[in-house]
Amino acid sequence: MNSHPAAPRLLIIGVGLIGGSLARAARAQGLFREVIGVSRSAATLAQALSMGVVDRVEENLSIAARELGAGDIVVICVPTLSVAQILEQLARCLAPSVTITDVASVKGSVIMAAQSAYGFMPPQLVPGHPIAGSEQSGVAAARGDLFVDHQVILTPHAATEPEHLQRVRNLWQQVGAVVSEMSVEEHDEVLAATSHLPHMLAYTLVDTLSGMDEKREIFRYAAGGFRDFTRIAGSDPTMWHDIALANRDALLDVLARLQSRLNVLSTAIDTGDSDFLLNMFSRARDARNNLPARVPPNTCEPDSNE
Amino acid sequence: MNSHPAAPRLLIIGVGLIGGSLARAARAQGLFREVIGVSRSAATLAQALSMGVVDRVEENLSIAARELGAGDIVVICVPTLSVAQILEQLARCLAPSVTITDVASVKGSVIMAAQSAYGFMPPQLVPGHPIAGSEQSGVAAARGDLFVDHQVILTPHAATEPEHLQRVRNLWQQVGAVVSEMSVEEHDEVLAATSHLPHMLAYTLVDTLSGMDEKREIFRYAAGGFRDFTRIAGSDPTMWHDIALANRDALLDVLARLQSRLNVLSTAIDTGDSDFLLNMFSRARDARNNLPARVPPNTCEPDSNE
Repeated sequence: MNSHPAAPRLLIIGVGLIGGSLARAARAQGLFREVIGVSRSAATLAQALSMGVVDRVEENLSIAARELGAGDIVVICVPTLSVAQILEQLARCLAPSVTITDVASVKGSVIMAAQSAYGFMPPQLVPGHPIAGSEQSGVAAARGDLFVDHQVILTPHAATEPEHLQRVRNLWQQVGAVVSEMSVEEHDEVLAATSHLPHMLAYTLVDTLSGMDEKREIFRYAAGGFRDFTRIAGSDPTMWHDIALANRDALLDVLARLQSRLNVLSTAIDTGDSDFLLNMFSRARDARNNLPARVPPNTCEPDSNE
Repeated sequence: MNSHPAAPRLLIIGVGLIGGSLARAARAQGLFREVIGVSRSAATLAQALSMGVVDRVEENLSIAARELGAGDIVVICVPTLSVAQILEQLARCLAPSVTITDVASVKGSVIMAAQSAYGFMPPQLVPGHPIAGSEQSGVAAARGDLFVDHQVILTPHAATEPEHLQRVRNLWQQVGAVVSEMSVEEHDEVLAATSHLPHMLAYTLVDTLSGMDEKREIFRYAAGGFRDFTRIAGSDPTMWHDIALANRDALLDVLARLQSRLNVLSTAIDTGDSDFLLNMFSRARDARNNLPARVPPNTCEPDSNE
C-alpha cells in the first residue's frame, strides 16, 4: 500500500470538532484522494463515517501511518497533552517524506514533544494552530466552513523544510483560512493573553459564583452580558486542562499581570479614586471598540480553539 | 398646571438608553397622557424630540416636577451617582403623591441618597433596576422593546407605600418586563457578582492586554471568544465608574473572592495539579451550561445595565 498516485491523502488523528471540520472541508473541496480518520474511540469513528466526515477510518494509527508517502499530510488533532504520544508513534512508523502538522493551542509543548520523540526537530513537522472553534466539541459539531476567514498561525522551526511548510500553508488556505507565521514564543505569549487567560477568567468567575449561588439565587439574574462573558466557560475541560499546563509559563505571566491590575483596581474602588476608574474604563472601552475586525461582522459564533 | 385628568403623566429624568427606551415603550403602549423628557443637555432633548422618543421636553427639572400630581410617575434614569442630586431637587418641588422610581444598578446608594435628601425614606419612592441595556448608550440607541422579557428588580423599603409600588410594578409589566422584588442588600450582592464583577474583569483584561499590545500585536489574533468575553468592556465608563463606587463594599467582596480563586488556580497551574484543574473546569462548565434560560434563545444582544 505504499503506492502513491497523483492526489495525496489526508490523515486526521483525533476526529473531534477541529479534526472533523478539517476533514469535512478537505472532502468538500476535493483536495485529497482519501481522507482517513484515526481515533482511539470506535464510537467516534463510526459516527465520523456515518456522518460522511471522512472517507475511511482506522483504529490503529501505525497501520494508517505506514500507508502514507511523499505528498501526504498527517494532521494531529488530539488534545494538547496527547500530542506527545502521537508523535512518539509517528516517529516509529511514518516516512520522513510525509508532512506532519497539528492544531494544538500551545506550540512550545509540541516542539518539545517532537524533539523528545524524534531525538531532533523533524523537518517534516509544521506546528500550526487554527484560531477557530466553538464551545461545543466532538465530531457531531464538525462544520466544513469552520475555518473560512479565520486565522491559522504556523510556527515553523528552523529545521522545518520549506516544502512541508508550503504544503500545510496550502491546505489551510484551500479550506478558507488566513495563514500567518510567527515564532513559537510569540504565539504562546499572544495566545496566553487573548485566549488562555480569558478562558481561565471565565472558568474562575463561574466557579466563584457557583460557590455563592447556594446562598443567593445568583444566576437567576444573570443577563445577556453575563452569558456572553461566560460562554467560553462552556468549553471542553480536558482541552483547557491541557492548554493550561502546556502553556504554563506564559499563562502564569499574564495571570500575574492581570492580578496585579485587579489589585490596583480594587484599591481604586476602595479609596474612591474616580480619576483612575474613569481613565482605566475609558482606555479599555476604546481598546475594545478598536479591535481589528478579523471576524466578519454579525457572526455571533464564538471561537474557542484558541 | 396642577390639574390632573384621567390618564397620568410620565416624567423621564435623563433621556439616555434606558430612559429613552422606557419613554418609547410607554408612548408605544399609550400608557400616559404625556411623556416628558428632562435632561441637562439641550442636544439630547432636541434629539429625543426629533426622534419621537418623548412628547415634550423640559430643561428645568423643577418646573417639570411642579406640574405633576397623584398618579403621575417620575423615573430617574441618570448615572448612579447623579441620582442623589436629582432626589435633592425632587425633595424640594415634587408633591408627595407623585410616584418616584429609578433604574440605577445599585440600590443601597439610592436609599441613602433619598434618606439624605428627604430626611426620611420617602414613601413615594420605589427603588428599581431593569436588567436590560446594551454596551451602547445614549438616546440614539433607545428601543421600545428593550425591556420585553427582561427582569426588573424592585427593592421596596419598609416605608414604601403599596400604592406606589403597584404603580411602578404595572409600568414595567406594561412594557413587557418580568418584575420581581428583593431586599436592597440582596440586590446589590447579586448584581455585584453577576454584573459588576464581570464588567470589572472585562475592563481589567482589556486594559492589561493593551499594556502588552505595544510589544506584541496581541489583539490582531483575538478571535470570537475574546470578542464575546470583552464586549461589556465597550460599556459607558461614567456609568461603570458610578456603579463601582456606589456598590463598593459588595463589589470589593466578590473581587476578593475571585482573586482568592485566581490565586488557587495559579498555584494549581504552577504545580501541575491536574485533578484540581479538571474538576474546576468541569464544575464551571456544568454551571455555565445550566444557567437558567431567562433570555429568549438566539438573542445575541448583550445586556449591560446590570
